[in-house]
Amino acid sequence: MCADKIPTEEAEISTNRKTITLKNSTSSPNPDSKDLYAPRPCLDKGFVRLVDFMGNDDSIVQAARVSYGKGTKKSTEDRGLIRYLLRHSHTTPFEMVEFKFHVKLPIFVARQWIRHRTANVNEYSGRYSVMEDEFYMPKTENIHFQSKLNKQGRDDSVEHEPSAELRKKFSDATEDIQRRSYSDYQEFIEVDLARELARINLPISMYTQWYWKIDLHNLFHFLRLRLDTHAQYEIRVFAQAMAEIVKEVTPIAFGAFEDYALNAVKFTKGELKLLQDALTNANIDDATAKSCGVSKRELRELEDKLAFVKKL
Amino acid sequence: MCADKIPTEEAEISTNRKTITLKNSTSSPNPDSKDLYAPRPCLDKGFVRLVDFMGNDDSIVQAARVSYGKGTKKSTEDRGLIRYLLRHSHTTPFEMVEFKFHVKLPIFVARQWIRHRTANVNEYSGRYSVMEDEFYMPKTENIHFQSKLNKQGRDDSVEHEPSAELRKKFSDATEDIQRRSYSDYQEFIEVDLARELARINLPISMYTQWYWKIDLHNLFHFLRLRLDTHAQYEIRVFAQAMAEIVKEVTPIAFGAFEDYALNAVKFTKGELKLLQDALTNANIDDATAKSCGVSKRELRELEDKLAFVKKL
Amino acid sequence: MCADKIPTEEAEISTNRKTITLKNSTSSPNPDSKDLYAPRPCLDKGFVRLVDFMGNDDSIVQAARVSYGKGTKKSTEDRGLIRYLLRHSHTTPFEMVEFKFHVKLPIFVARQWIRHRTANVNEYSGRYSVMEDEFYMPKTENIHFQSKLNKQGRDDSVEHEPSAELRKKFSDATEDIQRRSYSDYQEFIEVDLARELARINLPISMYTQWYWKIDLHNLFHFLRLRLDTHAQYEIRVFAQAMAEIVKEVTPIAFGAFEDYALNAVKFTKGELKLLQDALTNANIDDATAKSCGVSKRELRELEDKLAFVKKL
Amino acid sequence: MCADKIPTEEAEISTNRKTITLKNSTSSPNPDSKDLYAPRPCLDKGFVRLVDFMGNDDSIVQAARVSYGKGTKKSTEDRGLIRYLLRHSHTTPFEMVEFKFHVKLPIFVARQWIRHRTANVNEYSGRYSVMEDEFYMPKTENIHFQSKLNKQGRDDSVEHEPSAELRKKFSDATEDIQRRSYSDYQEFIEVDLARELARINLPISMYTQWYWKIDLHNLFHFLRLRLDTHAQYEIRVFAQAMAEIVKEVTPIAFGAFEDYALNAVKFTKGELKLLQDALTNANIDDATAKSCGVSKRELRELEDKLAFVKKL
Repeated sequence: MCADKIPTEEAEISTNRKTITLKNSTSSPNPDSKDLYAPRPCLDKGFVRLVDFMGNDDSIVQAARVSYGKGTKKSTEDRGLIRYLLRHSHTTPFEMVEFKFHVKLPIFVARQWIRHRTANVNEYSGRYSVMEDEFYMPKTENIHFQSKLNKQGRDDSVEHEPSAELRKKFSDATEDIQRRSYSDYQEFIEVDLARELARINLPISMYTQWYWKIDLHNLFHFLRLRLDTHAQYEIRVFAQAMAEIVKEVTPIAFGAFEDYALNAVKFTKGELKLLQDALTNANIDDATAKSCGVSKRELRELEDKLAFVKKL
Repeated sequence: MCADKIPTEEAEISTNRKTITLKNSTSSPNPDSKDLYAPRPCLDKGFVRLVDFMGNDDSIVQAARVSYGKGTKKSTEDRGLIRYLLRHSHTTPFEMVEFKFHVKLPIFVARQWIRHRTANVNEYSGRYSVMEDEFYMPKTENIHFQSKLNKQGRDDSVEHEPSAELRKKFSDATEDIQRRSYSDYQEFIEVDLARELARINLPISMYTQWYWKIDLHNLFHFLRLRLDTHAQYEIRVFAQAMAEIVKEVTPIAFGAFEDYALNAVKFTKGELKLLQDALTNANIDDATAKSCGVSKRELRELEDKLAFVKKL
Repeated sequence: MCADKIPTEEAEISTNRKTITLKNSTSSPNPDSKDLYAPRPCLDKGFVRLVDFMGNDDSIVQAARVSYGKGTKKSTEDRGLIRYLLRHSHTTPFEMVEFKFHVKLPIFVARQWIRHRTANVNEYSGRYSVMEDEFYMPKTENIHFQSKLNKQGRDDSVEHEPSAELRKKFSDATEDIQRRSYSDYQEFIEVDLARELARINLPISMYTQWYWKIDLHNLFHFLRLRLDTHAQYEIRVFAQAMAEIVKEVTPIAFGAFEDYALNAVKFTKGELKLLQDALTNANIDDATAKSCGVSKRELRELEDKLAFVKKL
Repeated sequence: MCADKIPTEEAEISTNRKTITLKNSTSSPNPDSKDLYAPRPCLDKGFVRLVDFMGNDDSIVQAARVSYGKGTKKSTEDRGLIRYLLRHSHTTPFEMVEFKFHVKLPIFVARQWIRHRTANVNEYSGRYSVMEDEFYMPKTENIHFQSKLNKQGRDDSVEHEPSAELRKKFSDATEDIQRRSYSDYQEFIEVDLARELARINLPISMYTQWYWKIDLHNLFHFLRLRLDTHAQYEIRVFAQAMAEIVKEVTPIAFGAFEDYALNAVKFTKGELKLLQDALTNANIDDATAKSCGVSKRELRELEDKLAFVKKL
């Protein structure tokens, strides 16, 4: 097996590349697959569609092998390596995979999204082009009161639902503003008023579009924050659509992300001291570990963690 | 003179620091100066104010000296060094100066501004807090038609001014949308509808606020793009306010930026071929050079440029 | 109290700034303190020294208040706010504090360090300047065998120490290479061979120097990785020196970093399932929580975490 | 023609994608081309090889069309659009193309290279893996004296060549250090001394390897700086190899880069004043412009530049 050897001779390299290509053709998604590139509807008029991607699970392994060189004597299993890398925050191999999306989204979602700076963006320009008559109208069941617990979110519990009247009132007000503001806009555009000015009366529920390109490490970071229940519902929908795409392109890395990031829990020093007895007396055996999907290597890592907790 | 020597001994270092501090106290702006930190009004309700800064012209020299070490035999004059660095795109010493601004700006300006990714931002959150009743209303004289030449801008020539009626119509429509949308917003906030939803009907002329922190090199990049006549008027106003502050804090670097970036012109290969005869036959003598503020070193650099043009 | 209100009137702003300045003057380190800026020796010939900094704990609060605006009805206690922000990965307010260090370090340490990209660097240039005769010589007790467990580190257990002979042999070989290579270098520099070439024979144990500027959020990220026992000993020494400085400048933020990052433990989904019984049956009461430094708010957060674990 | 229309309907989108794919298949390089992916030798033992890329000239157009939307009434010619974008520093569409290279390079070159921060890197780890016995040995004809003019470079003029004796002396010293240090290294590795320590005596002429991924905009920035005659010869060689690859993948963008960046000349304010008469009296007509490859649009832009010069 030559995958864990750094190719320095021309022959080796081309062999290596071929191997990787061949492996890709079986393990990676079929690039002609209709579903992968199809636009996935988000909210009432938005979508996410995959425009292009570079690399897959194999590329993560390939990049990691450069770092580990010939030092890895035995050919580690790829899945295990990818999971090890993600578990231990060896993030650079994940940066070697790149995704490009075309997204149509309301401006207030775009404003949250753009805060993720490690990405490339090309947005539709309201200075150059005429904005289209497309606005986000929340579904009735998504109109909620301010949450008492989550100071920045909405209370989506059934007990505290707004009345049908209030919901209708909000929908009507929303539609009214959207209709009026766009009709004004259109009128001023028709008499050739500057676009960059005419648009300033349009509400942030208006749809915009962009191309957005990001590497897998930074995309995971985005997904972790925007799949969270504290993220606004309207951006979560887009994160979910992208998560499905990522899962198809890099299934192993995405699985690791689910196990080690999305569904992991970090306990603070204080919490660990509070849980110290419970944790250090926990009954852990190999059989149970296996049934929980915890490998032998991970079991050793868990022992190290518990030893750390014991000393706190 | 020890400023161009890398201090490796403790004694030297503390001496050096003291020297720099002393030098700062004369050449840098007085930190108690009222004007420097005063908010500078921008547009009708916005402002830029300097919150804090780290470093000044001396810090650029100090950082550059680390790179050049003892290699610089003669103590180059600081102003000359700063100008040399900027002229030759040695950008890292300029990254050693940092500015923090508090800005109040319309959302549509914020959307252009945020595209500059190499900066730190803390923005007022419309999910967490109630938006205030403050909107941008363009002055009558700033309402223009779409430009025929600059496809993304407005035509501010006197000959093509919109009629007083049209301008009034736009102002009235703007005020109407702002008033209605805020009154709706307020009503829904009062009955405790989720803030993150209630706000979606507010127009992009609404004001927001943020803290914005950036290093001098990236700030110069921002200023070069946003002071340009092709930038939208409403963001140019903020760029001008920041430029004044930068000029006070780092006068030498700002002067170099004016001479070598803002007022420089890049000619393409084709243009240079077209101008080849004119350029290579230009009558250049030391006296004229001096009167144009071109130093001897710059004159040699110009000769190199013209030699390059000759060979195209 | 007006700190949690966004100042929009000139009067308010200047009042606010004064308040902040006053608060700083008591809670922040005295800028004339000798110790804070003194070079801290690292390894045999290296050092870290603080050159400058912008902001402190108060600046974190100040930036966060912009985001939360008037929405925060009650004036949250600053310490609580800082700890809340860090615990919940609200990282942007921490980006509002900036540090600038002058560091002297071996090239192989510099090569690990520079991988942290979100920082500004000005390094001594071996093309421009003559490298000084300064090399890193490891102390005898730091010479170890390759670790069997940590595949990238050394085994510093007492049982597996190299013999005194082997250690001496390594020290001697190191000194020999350093002496020879520098003597060659000097000879070629004297006859004016190009510096950029003459230096290529110098070993990576040679010392270099740089100015390094970074914001607190990214510095915490650096420290978390480089204070870790898996980081190479020689870079850990520098991380420790910087941690001491950070602790002095931003004591509250650093305390939060210790409790919520350095001494926190993340358990994976598999581990949580394995520990599920132990965790969900743990005996947690308010009194014990208090004695572990867990606030009521944190206790509620812990309950949420345990509820999540229960459902896995 | 639908390329300049933003697809919002599913049908449109899939049509559009197909069109783009078809266009790619003719204008883009054949992905099975042997030459494109073949390692290109650099220096004595190094290489650059293209591992993967995402996008091509069409992707630049595709991304730009998102920004310009339906606003562009007429279907602008793609080549013209790409050249316009580059000429006017509309850089974001160029960020939509990504390259991944595998590079083998001396450590001192890697140290210059890594300063470009907007890229992803996976480097061979000397802590984890055993370094191979490969060092850079400069060719005799590349051994030069320090330049008197370029304070950081070498003097490669024929008149100031070092004697054959001196050159041989340097080559011999280089070989000696490389041989000795590697033989020491090997000896310590064999007795299992920690790799992270054993390597510290190896010189910076040693070869390392990495995967390096970067977008086209930032790659152009790298190339502009590293193809420059002031860049060290040893990194220029790698820049040239990458430039050839980029030229194959994105021929139109690379042509624009040559005309508007590599072979453009920026004149400072002082220089422009000095050249004012020559420039403003230059004889420019349409026929000459055409023969110099200057389009009508560019001619108008030149007139604007000259009008600016006139007013200085």
